[in-house]
Amino acid sequence: MTDIKTLALECRDAATAIAGLPTEAKNALLRAMADALLADEATILAANARDLEAASAKGIGSAMLDRLRLDASRLQGIAAAVREVAELPDPVGQVTRAYDRPNGIHVERVRVPLGVIAMIYEARPNVTADAAALCLKAGNAVILRGGSEAIHSNTAIAAALKRALSEAGLRDAVLTLVEDLRRETILELIQLSDVIDLVIPRGGEGLIRFVAEHARVPVIKHYKGVCHQYVDAGADEDLALALLLDGKVSRPSACNSLETLLVHRDIATTFLPRAAEALRVRGVEIRADEAARALMPGGVTATDEDFAAEFLDLVIAVGVVDDLDAAIAHIRHYTSDHTEVIVTRDPAHAEKFLNALRSAVVMVNASSRFSDGGELGLGAEIGISTTRLHSYGPMGLEALTVERFVVRGEGQVRHPALIKPGP
Amino acid sequence: MTDIKTLALECRDAATAIAGLPTEAKNALLRAMADALLADEATILAANARDLEAASAKGIGSAMLDRLRLDASRLQGIAAAVREVAELPDPVGQVTRAYDRPNGIHVERVRVPLGVIAMIYEARPNVTADAAALCLKAGNAVILRGGSEAIHSNTAIAAALKRALSEAGLRDAVLTLVEDLRRETILELIQLSDVIDLVIPRGGEGLIRFVAEHARVPVIKHYKGVCHQYVDAGADEDLALALLLDGKVSRPSACNSLETLLVHRDIATTFLPRAAEALRVRGVEIRADEAARALMPGGVTATDEDFAAEFLDLVIAVGVVDDLDAAIAHIRHYTSDHTEVIVTRDPAHAEKFLNALRSAVVMVNASSRFSDGGELGLGAEIGISTTRLHSYGPMGLEALTVERFVVRGEGQVRHPALIKPGP
Repeated sequence: MTDIKTLALECRDAATAIAGLPTEAKNALLRAMADALLADEATILAANARDLEAASAKGIGSAMLDRLRLDASRLQGIAAAVREVAELPDPVGQVTRAYDRPNGIHVERVRVPLGVIAMIYEARPNVTADAAALCLKAGNAVILRGGSEAIHSNTAIAAALKRALSEAGLRDAVLTLVEDLRRETILELIQLSDVIDLVIPRGGEGLIRFVAEHARVPVIKHYKGVCHQYVDAGADEDLALALLLDGKVSRPSACNSLETLLVHRDIATTFLPRAAEALRVRGVEIRADEAARALMPGGVTATDEDFAAEFLDLVIAVGVVDDLDAAIAHIRHYTSDHTEVIVTRDPAHAEKFLNALRSAVVMVNASSRFSDGGELGLGAEIGISTTRLHSYGPMGLEALTVERFVVRGEGQVRHPALIKPGP
Repeated sequence: MTDIKTLALECRDAATAIAGLPTEAKNALLRAMADALLADEATILAANARDLEAASAKGIGSAMLDRLRLDASRLQGIAAAVREVAELPDPVGQVTRAYDRPNGIHVERVRVPLGVIAMIYEARPNVTADAAALCLKAGNAVILRGGSEAIHSNTAIAAALKRALSEAGLRDAVLTLVEDLRRETILELIQLSDVIDLVIPRGGEGLIRFVAEHARVPVIKHYKGVCHQYVDAGADEDLALALLLDGKVSRPSACNSLETLLVHRDIATTFLPRAAEALRVRGVEIRADEAARALMPGGVTATDEDFAAEFLDLVIAVGVVDDLDAAIAHIRHYTSDHTEVIVTRDPAHAEKFLNALRSAVVMVNASSRFSDGGELGLGAEIGISTTRLHSYGPMGLEALTVERFVVRGEGQVRHPALIKPGP
């Protein structure tokens, strides 16, 4: 097996070609990749069957088995997602600003690819194709290290994608799948600071903390989404209830689902009994502070851990607060910097909430579930950042590039006097 | 002495107030800081004299003594620089994009402060005031750890700045000077991943590598500037010579000075003898490859190390190349990703050079010395990044913020069907 540093260096060497590829060539490549995935359906599904068999034998839970499972329809979905990336605008070469300086030099800020991006992720085999498509479209080389449970599926998917690269006359090392599944190999990979420009870990908090704590290269990550919804005094209760149910129930395993409901005490007596019933009907367990519990039959007492928890399940923590300031103080204390929502009719309260909190996504009267690259108009999502550097919140193609300076002059110098006396 | 974690936590707690301060209040604060620096002139210069005395006793070189030295005129310059930051546009709250989604939610990308920024730097005491002004203007708290040589100067400067904070009713912990000069304290500081949002090291390559290798928080840095100038066949020789002299001679200790001159072989026979004479007159030592040496009397043979070196002195490496492709290949091999210049009359060659190289700043027919925040119109410079993440090239106020998402709706949800059946 080739060692990881050699693989990474080959990937980096192949990065120059993809960085300079014209938009139409990249789009054609992505469409060819989608075709290759469909052409390899039998191989990919057979590989996936091996993964599923091994996972079942290990006694892996049904939720994870479902994330791992591919079928013809899901594979078509993966291919369609790759095609959609081909349709997105190319961020590379975009001129974000252009201006002349007083001395006449013309300055442009222009987006360039980051270089080599390493993705480290868990079970879902669709990430292999999604991440490859997004990284390549933004002109980057990509190193993929998926979970061991999906190794056969990932290898088959990567083989299809690599064939499309070769057929386009590109070195297939620009997309490198790491098949060596030892954790020491991840460790070595994330310390290659002269080779890798960015690591994006996706998966459980344990994996992400391992990467963040050991990386010698920049990491963009989020540990968890403890998303809050605050219902202000005088809020539209129907609207607040709709946002609560959408936020909590529509996909509890998503990081943009609600984990905590805070309610102003002046609206609690009418709103919380309705909320309790609507949540109960939908199977949501309620963990409430003392004031809220008195108004929500069937709720249990919330601990401090409950208010800090990302349940990823049909469970919600509920608290009653004295006023907007108390809601802000609660959120500041427990925030994961992901997404916070205020439901209010008072524009001044809305602005105060937006300004007082510095989470990646802050919302007024909208569902936390819109905190998503697709929903916010990025076209696709490579991950979500709760690190306030480079990118904050859902990350699309643009987050896989950086702006640099391009300067055009006609011989301008800083110290003309220096030049004159010489020959 | 209070331990560093306690200091950092106090700084972080004070960050909320500065993050929410209106622009005019921040500008008034900065002007008061400039006044406080001038009011403390006697104290600051006395403290500086103590540093200079200790440095002389240690036998520190004259260049470093000069960087350390303050006088009334230099202090006025420092105060003026703080005032200039007050005049710059405030990046916080800037809406960079605004759009509606098909479902009617309104999305804005809005700049917010990064949070807590740690600056780790060497001798120059002016950095204490410059960095404080830039970080605070961008709504950030700042932890400053300057070099031991400047400790008395830095303490006196920080005391003046902190007085202005207190008089403005702000907690002065928002600007924290680390007076504990042990290297273990830096180590502890740069591992406080729950407290510090960004570390910017400025100084020698040794300090920067130490920070980069041990940090558990994001680092923005550049190790060195090995800036290249390539003179194309058919270039205007007078123009090429002016850019060469400005690039090499105007301030050899700056990271944006030229270190390597590459010349197309078709222009070498006429250009290099002129360049050799002009450089010689100005005391520049020439280290040349075989072909260049034959045309540059007095030059010595360049080693591979010379082409990789940041001389920071009146020394230049010179090479003759067969064509533009060879120049690009040379620069790709030796680049520090800082700044590269092409001198050419051929627009197609200029575009090829700009596209083939991915350094932070690429220039056509302009001096490498323009690779500077002030010269490129950023107003001021907190540092230069050769890391392709967050910021690439000179960094101004905007680089001390990040864009987040602000969403305003009227009750939109992702799964309306989910809501209906409930009570």
